[in-house]
Amino acid sequence: MGLTLTQKIFSAKVGREVKAGELIEVDVDMVLGNDVTAPVAIKEFEKIGKEVFDKTKIALVPDHFVPNKDIKSAEQVNIVRKFAKKHGIVNFFEVGQMGIEHALLPEKGLVLPGDVVIGADSHTCTYGALTCFSTGIGSTDMAAAMATGKAWFKVPEAIKFVLKGNLQKWVSGKDVILYIIGKIGVDGALYKSMEFTGNIKALSIDDRFTIANMAIEAGAKNGIFDFDEITEAYVKGRAKREYKVFERDENAEYSEVYEINLDEIRPQVAFPHLPENTKNIDEVGKVKIDQVVIGSCTNGRISDMEIAYKILKGKKVHPDVRLLIFPATQEIYLECVKRGYIEEFIKAGAAVSTPTCGPCLGGHMGILAKGERALATTNRNFVGRMGHPESEVYLSSPAVAAASAIAGYIVSPEEVE
Amino acid sequence: MGLTLTQKIFSAKVGREVKAGELIEVDVDMVLGNDVTAPVAIKEFEKIGKEVFDKTKIALVPDHFVPNKDIKSAEQVNIVRKFAKKHGIVNFFEVGQMGIEHALLPEKGLVLPGDVVIGADSHTCTYGALTCFSTGIGSTDMAAAMATGKAWFKVPEAIKFVLKGNLQKWVSGKDVILYIIGKIGVDGALYKSMEFTGNIKALSIDDRFTIANMAIEAGAKNGIFDFDEITEAYVKGRAKREYKVFERDENAEYSEVYEINLDEIRPQVAFPHLPENTKNIDEVGKVKIDQVVIGSCTNGRISDMEIAYKILKGKKVHPDVRLLIFPATQEIYLECVKRGYIEEFIKAGAAVSTPTCGPCLGGHMGILAKGERALATTNRNFVGRMGHPESEVYLSSPAVAAASAIAGYIVSPEEVE
Repeated sequence: MGLTLTQKIFSAKVGREVKAGELIEVDVDMVLGNDVTAPVAIKEFEKIGKEVFDKTKIALVPDHFVPNKDIKSAEQVNIVRKFAKKHGIVNFFEVGQMGIEHALLPEKGLVLPGDVVIGADSHTCTYGALTCFSTGIGSTDMAAAMATGKAWFKVPEAIKFVLKGNLQKWVSGKDVILYIIGKIGVDGALYKSMEFTGNIKALSIDDRFTIANMAIEAGAKNGIFDFDEITEAYVKGRAKREYKVFERDENAEYSEVYEINLDEIRPQVAFPHLPENTKNIDEVGKVKIDQVVIGSCTNGRISDMEIAYKILKGKKVHPDVRLLIFPATQEIYLECVKRGYIEEFIKAGAAVSTPTCGPCLGGHMGILAKGERALATTNRNFVGRMGHPESEVYLSSPAVAAASAIAGYIVSPEEVE
Repeated sequence: MGLTLTQKIFSAKVGREVKAGELIEVDVDMVLGNDVTAPVAIKEFEKIGKEVFDKTKIALVPDHFVPNKDIKSAEQVNIVRKFAKKHGIVNFFEVGQMGIEHALLPEKGLVLPGDVVIGADSHTCTYGALTCFSTGIGSTDMAAAMATGKAWFKVPEAIKFVLKGNLQKWVSGKDVILYIIGKIGVDGALYKSMEFTGNIKALSIDDRFTIANMAIEAGAKNGIFDFDEITEAYVKGRAKREYKVFERDENAEYSEVYEINLDEIRPQVAFPHLPENTKNIDEVGKVKIDQVVIGSCTNGRISDMEIAYKILKGKKVHPDVRLLIFPATQEIYLECVKRGYIEEFIKAGAAVSTPTCGPCLGGHMGILAKGERALATTNRNFVGRMGHPESEVYLSSPAVAAASAIAGYIVSPEEVE
C-alpha cells in the first residue's frame, strides 16, 4: 500500500517508509510555545541544563494574556522574555510586534510545506493548511524538543476528505469544518490525520487555515491539505529557507473516505456545548445574543476581516450586543486600517483591539457574565469556555457573526444584506 | 470680598452668595458612575426604593475593566447594564460605543459650563476645564444623588494660578500640572479649588482637561479654568442644552496666588511613587523602561495622539519596550484612524487597543511584572499602581512617553526628533 500525505512527510524525515501505528523519532523544524505553556516548558528545560538545539527553530509567542492581564500573566511573559534573551531565541514576539501564534507563524514564513512542527498549544494543527505536519504537544515535550530538536510520534492513520464543487456565497472554511465535525463528531478523527484533497482550489488559504485549525476539534492528530498554486502563492515571499512539497501516493490507505459536496453546505452554527452540535443556519431559530467575537486563531485573518467589513459597512451593531473584533496579527490589523475596515468597524459600534487570544479561552477582553450568550468565530464552545459556567457560546463564521451582531440574534448574512 | 469662580457657580445654584467653609445643598446637573463604583451605588440606591431623579442626568460608563476582564467584571457591568435598562437611563455607554468616562462626557456634551457635576471617580474633576464645578464623590453619595438630584458640599477656598507666557515646543498641559504638583505637593491644594486664569489661551482645551484632571493629585476639591473662546469652540455643536458662563469677581479672595511662567516649564517626569516627585527632563538621567502607556483620562485625547504620532512616525519602538496606546474614546480612535495615526502606531510597533482604563489602575491590558518599570501618561504612580508592588511607574506627557518608547529610556522628545 502507498502512503498518506502525513506518512510521506514522516518517511522523508526518517529516511525510510513509515507505517501507521509505529513509533518514530523525528527532527522538528519548529517548536512553538506561548505565555501559558512556555513558562512550564522553560522550567523543565532548565532542569536539563543544555543549550537550545537551534536558536532559529523555536518560536515564543506570548498571545494568550497580552497585553498583560494581571501580575501573574506579566510574570509568565517575563519568564519567556528573559529565556528568549538568555538563549538568543530569534523568534520571540513582543506585544506590538506580534499576533496570535497560529496566524503569526505562517505569516512570518516560520512554518513551511514539508515541515514537522510541534507546538505547546492544541491548535498548532493550523499549519497543515501549508502541507506540513503540525500538531499540539504538552509543555514537557516542548522542553525536550527545545533541547534535542526531536520529537516522538505514533504514525497516524488518516481519513480522506474529498472536496467537490464550490462554496456558496457567505459560506467559508469555518462552515466546512463545522459541517464536517457535525458529521463525524468531536472524536470522529481521534489520533488520525484529516487529509483534505479534491477541489481544494475552492478554498482560499485562509479557509484552509481555519479548517486545519479545527481538526483538533474532531480529535485529529493533524489536518493537512494538498499543495497547490494557492499554497505556493502564500508561501512565496514569506519563506526564507528551502521547503519540500509532498504528495500522497495514489494507492494510500485510509481508514475512511468522505466526499464533501461544498455546494450543499449552508452557513453552520455550533450550539453549546460542543463543536459537533451544528445546525444549518436555517434551523437555528431566534437565538438572542449578548456578545459577538470576531477573531482568534481560527478566524482572525484578513479575509475574515474582509467578510466582517462587507457586512458591517454602513450598518450599526444592535444596541443589546457588544461586538468585539480582534485582528489576529499586527500585520492584519495594519492591513485592516489601510483598507478602511477599522474605520467601518468603529463606525458600526465595534470595539477593535490589538491581537490577543483573550476572549476565546475566557482569558480576558470579553468575558461573559452569568446567563449571557455569545456568538463567536472561535473554535470551542465548551461549558464556561468564555466566562461564567452558566454562560453559552455559539460558534460560527465571521459572516454569520457580523450579521448577527447587527440583528441582535443569530441570523444568516442573507438577512442583513 | 468677592467670589471665586467655584463660589460663583455655587451661589447661582443656591440663589444667594455662598462663603468658603459653609455647607450647602445643590442641584446637580450630572451624576456619573463607572463599572467599579456604580454597582455599589446601585445596591444602595435600590434600598432607597425610588425612581431616579432624572433619566437624562445620570451617566453610566463601564470603562475600567472593559472589554470584560473576568467573570467578576462581567457581572459588575451587567448590574449597571440592567439598572440602566430598568430605569431608562439615557446615557449608558456599552463597549464599542463608549470611551473613558472623563473623555467621553465632555465629548458628548453631557457636561457644560456652569454645571455642577459629581462622579463616583476621583478624576471627575476633569470637567473643570469647561468652567464648571465637578468633583469626585463616593458610591453612597452617588446613590443619594441618583434619587434626589442633590448633593452636599462644603464651599471650598481657592488657590489662584495665574498663567503667564507660552509653552515651549513639546511642553503640554501634563507638564504644567506636574510642574505645579511638584511645586505645591500632593496635598498642596487640600479641599481647595485650583482656579486657572491669566494667559489660558496658551493652553488647548485638551491641555486644560489634563490639568483639571490632575487637580485631585494635589488634593484639590476641583480644578477650574476661566471661560474663553477656546471653551466656547469646544462646547459649540456638542451642547444640546443651555449653559451659563460664570466669571470670578475681581476682588475674590484666595488662600494663595501662584504665578506660573509657562515659558520656564521644561518637560516634566514624576518619579515613583508620588506625582509630586517631579524632575525636569534634563535632570532625569538614564532611566531604562520596560513599558510605555499612552492614554487614560489624563492623556488619551486627540491632541495627545497627535503628539505621539508626530514623534513615532517613521520610527520604531525600542525592542526592549512594549508601547501600548489607548485612544480615550471610540470617537478619538476613529479620528486617529482617519488621520493615519493608527497606521503609524502599528508600523512603529505599538499595540493599539479599544478604550479602557485598564493599565492605569493596574486593572488589565498592561500590568507590570516584578521589577519592571513603566513610563505612562496616566495620573498616578503610587506603589504597585500598575501591577507588582515592586514595579515602578513614572509619569510624563505623551511627547516624553513616545520619545522614550523609541529610545528605550526616558528622554526628551528633542533627542529623537
